[in-house]
Amino acid sequence: MRISARNTLKAKVKKIIPGSVNSEVILEISEGIEVTAIITKDAVQSLNLTEGADAYAVVKSTDVMVAVD
Amino acid sequence: MRISARNTLKAKVKKIIPGSVNSEVILEISEGIEVTAIITKDAVQSLNLTEGADAYAVVKSTDVMVAVD
Amino acid sequence: MRISARNTLKAKVKKIIPGSVNSEVILEISEGIEVTAIITKDAVQSLNLTEGADAYAVVKSTDVMVAVD
Amino acid sequence: MRISARNTLKAKVKKIIPGSVNSEVILEISEGIEVTAIITKDAVQSLNLTEGADAYAVVKSTDVMVAVD
Amino acid sequence: MRISARNTLKAKVKKIIPGSVNSEVILEISEGIEVTAIITKDAVQSLNLTEGADAYAVVKSTDVMVAVD
Amino acid sequence: MRISARNTLKAKVKKIIPGSVNSEVILEISEGIEVTAIITKDAVQSLNLTEGADAYAVVKSTDVMVAVD
Repeated sequence: MRISARNTLKAKVKKIIPGSVNSEVILEISEGIEVTAIITKDAVQSLNLTEGADAYAVVKSTDVMVAVD
Repeated sequence: MRISARNTLKAKVKKIIPGSVNSEVILEISEGIEVTAIITKDAVQSLNLTEGADAYAVVKSTDVMVAVD
Repeated sequence: MRISARNTLKAKVKKIIPGSVNSEVILEISEGIEVTAIITKDAVQSLNLTEGADAYAVVKSTDVMVAVD
Repeated sequence: MRISARNTLKAKVKKIIPGSVNSEVILEISEGIEVTAIITKDAVQSLNLTEGADAYAVVKSTDVMVAVD
Repeated sequence: MRISARNTLKAKVKKIIPGSVNSEVILEISEGIEVTAIITKDAVQSLNLTEGADAYAVVKSTDVMVAVD
Repeated sequence: MRISARNTLKAKVKKIIPGSVNSEVILEISEGIEVTAIITKDAVQSLNLTEGADAYAVVKSTDVMVAVD
């Protein structure tokens, strides 16, 4: 399946922290660059996510903000 | 200002594509890793964004999805 | 690619309304049930979306609100 | 109250799964078509949501993504 | 219609700036406190929004970030 | 840090309700005007948020909906 979200970044699952409805998933995009996702507990199960697995971080362009110092 | 959004990634502004209300901003996170943001035209101006400038890509963890092949 | 977004609804592309940065895509989920998406112009091109094509409407569960009369 | 979110789909509450801060609400849009929403526990209470009740799934058009096989 | 979005703030429409697909709507929440919304051009028409009209700014709690100096 | 999100509203932290992954933060924007945010538990800690502290409610303009009676 290809999706309209403009940002699909190759990543590795570094850590999974389960919660009651949602779980926190830390993805390593490249050496020293991490992205944190909060997805539902069911989604972690249905995608069979495990630490070390290959995955993608997917973000819509309207959900990316830009900041400057 | 520090913000609750969990993902604040150092980046460089690679390209800015203006539109009538929104503009598309392409940010380089690291060698070969780009993120596309859509922000308002006014935000591009108020942040004085120019191509080559230092910036951050900021994304809430609830806006990051995870995908697998 | 399988994605953590909990809502992946089979649909048919009914109408595409292009804009300067974004385009409006009207998807028919089933007889008389339509969903409107706003995605980038580039996404419409990269997905080769045409009216009448099969597609999916994909929505994260945290982006669905519930209302009552 | 009428709202700018472009997608207001008639639905029936099929299931409610409570969590510590958020709750998962499964809505039936039509025969065999379900949408999952994650809303706050307080919102479930203030809307008096119960399984079998009439409701609407409300989604902004910028939160709908399009995917193809 | 009552909605699960936790933030429904009484406001007055101060300014409307139309675009090709989206329009910018500036809402005054109280003396000197303004909120900017970007909604579709069609939504502005279907809600018959005019400058000076009473309205509400509606935001899901998961879309509100917190920042500190 | 300055951010592209168009809405940065001065506020005071009125109440913090912790959850397993997320926490609910109630912000007072001005006399009688409150905004509820749901952010991660870690974000509450990393921003050292305490009840009574000065803060900002930050919302992207694409995340603000408009409603009318």
